[in-house]
Amino acid sequence: MDVSKFGFDTINLGHGSGGIMTRDLLDKIIFKTFNNPYLNQKHDGSIVKFKNEIAISTDSFVISPIFFKGGNIGELAVNGTVNDVAMCGAIPKFLSLAFIVEEGLKIEEFVKIVNSIKEVSDKSGVQIITGDTKVVERGKGDKIFINTTGFGEVHSKANISTKNIKVGDKIIVSGFIAQHGMAIMSQREGLEFESTIISDTTNVNFLVEKMLDAFGERIHLLRDPTRGGVASVLSEIANDISKGITIHENKIPLEKQVAAACEILGLDPLYVANEGVFIAIVDPIVAEAVIELMRKDDKGKNTVCIGEITDEHPNKVVMTSSIGGKRIISPLIGEQLPRIC
Amino acid sequence: MDVSKFGFDTINLGHGSGGIMTRDLLDKIIFKTFNNPYLNQKHDGSIVKFKNEIAISTDSFVISPIFFKGGNIGELAVNGTVNDVAMCGAIPKFLSLAFIVEEGLKIEEFVKIVNSIKEVSDKSGVQIITGDTKVVERGKGDKIFINTTGFGEVHSKANISTKNIKVGDKIIVSGFIAQHGMAIMSQREGLEFESTIISDTTNVNFLVEKMLDAFGERIHLLRDPTRGGVASVLSEIANDISKGITIHENKIPLEKQVAAACEILGLDPLYVANEGVFIAIVDPIVAEAVIELMRKDDKGKNTVCIGEITDEHPNKVVMTSSIGGKRIISPLIGEQLPRIC
Repeated sequence: MDVSKFGFDTINLGHGSGGIMTRDLLDKIIFKTFNNPYLNQKHDGSIVKFKNEIAISTDSFVISPIFFKGGNIGELAVNGTVNDVAMCGAIPKFLSLAFIVEEGLKIEEFVKIVNSIKEVSDKSGVQIITGDTKVVERGKGDKIFINTTGFGEVHSKANISTKNIKVGDKIIVSGFIAQHGMAIMSQREGLEFESTIISDTTNVNFLVEKMLDAFGERIHLLRDPTRGGVASVLSEIANDISKGITIHENKIPLEKQVAAACEILGLDPLYVANEGVFIAIVDPIVAEAVIELMRKDDKGKNTVCIGEITDEHPNKVVMTSSIGGKRIISPLIGEQLPRIC
Repeated sequence: MDVSKFGFDTINLGHGSGGIMTRDLLDKIIFKTFNNPYLNQKHDGSIVKFKNEIAISTDSFVISPIFFKGGNIGELAVNGTVNDVAMCGAIPKFLSLAFIVEEGLKIEEFVKIVNSIKEVSDKSGVQIITGDTKVVERGKGDKIFINTTGFGEVHSKANISTKNIKVGDKIIVSGFIAQHGMAIMSQREGLEFESTIISDTTNVNFLVEKMLDAFGERIHLLRDPTRGGVASVLSEIANDISKGITIHENKIPLEKQVAAACEILGLDPLYVANEGVFIAIVDPIVAEAVIELMRKDDKGKNTVCIGEITDEHPNKVVMTSSIGGKRIISPLIGEQLPRIC
């Protein structure tokens, strides 16, 4: 796409008018990039059909900076929603896409984001079927915010619910934690430090599909620990099921440089956001086999079991340390890392 | 809802953390207000089932001011998307709801908006099934932006497509135009003038359903002229169908005070946004009967036929004036009224 031929260098208010400039922006960038029969109807909405139950999930992405080590806001907006749909035990098929752009965003940056959206939506097997573009005045937004809503067909063997969780169930994590949050922190104004930590943003839907194909109802819960990290998600689950969760400090998968960065900044990696990692709570009978299957997939090659469901300490997450100590892991209070997604 | 008992007066960054404050906000306001089995799953997404084809539409609402004569941003976010789904010939059933809140928004205002969302979603027969809440720092947003994505079951008799439009088809407008845009303008800083113009924001889905029940495929197109107004929507249609559109100036339904306000501000009402009005392009055989049915409904009581499809002047909208003159109506160029939805 030759940006210099567009006749405009930045997004301005006219691009959100619903008039000729909006159509121009859509024709030159959006319709051209995504070019599929759903979007080409150019109607207010799109019509689709599903055979089975549909899982729906929505997320607005307000990450700052919009370009970061390992990805950008567009990539994140696709992967984040694709993964949320997958966490419902569904196979993501379609996404809606809505931009809120701050006046003055460079077209070059907008195109880069749109191209990323196209690339990762192709990778994860979803189509962008309907959308919206709004423009707000300078100082009334922050470059670009993106909402995606995702639709997936529920896997015929899936039965994902906190209600299925039993004492003894194993808690599995699909990879190294805290990478996304620390990648963003490492780049933030005033907090930059020498680091090669990159965001783990990726789509995990195909790995989830394989797990459901093989283990069906034995997969009791899937959840991606984004905002609030592993600690917040597990605390929420413990609270919902009125059972206890025990995790083991020496099992937590953590890369050395992420651990070091957390130490420098005084952050607990258990509370730091992830984008390409998920937690599976599974029947102990299949736990070993689930881990084996996950490790064979590139997106799950660092999978480990970090703990189990227990009838001790109901509603609480307790971490046992390598030297035998125990401490309660509470959910995140306040906000340590604003706008990491 | 007793706001004073919440323990917080404003939304702050912690409410977007994904931790304990997010859960607190959701429990005290969102889950309590919408309280339905879909949302009560408290998962990353929701699971629904449709028998037929599904129409999907997404919109982000960035209107300023967030409270205006005749409504607020929450009401608009429901009606806008409900109507977009209806324009696809579908019966709206579910909405997703995603907030981007600027730090410092008063809880009282947030609750007022959430209550409006509940009220109008009940009125239009849709349920809020999944959502998201993000908080951005002061100065990085503008009080609140709302994205809604709507899902509806396509009406069994509907066949809405520009492809069905034929020469001779009648162009029907469901009510007085330009009310929403002028209500917003009348309230904008620096532009306030004595006026009782109120926004026309409302849901038109039940009226559309009646029209489809009675006339099915004879309803060729439905479109709501929001941003860019009637002129932009008709221009877009003329362009898409490669046929001409003729409209008659003396038929355009316009209230006196809206006309006066437009004159004062030098605005053409044909380009001003509407929120509770839609355009139907119908087979001439049923046009009179469609108008009669629409007029019997409170939401269509001011319905009129404003013009027709013609094989003259392809791709162009031409307006005949009361004294016999003709002028071409081009789509909106630039932006006259930013952030009216």
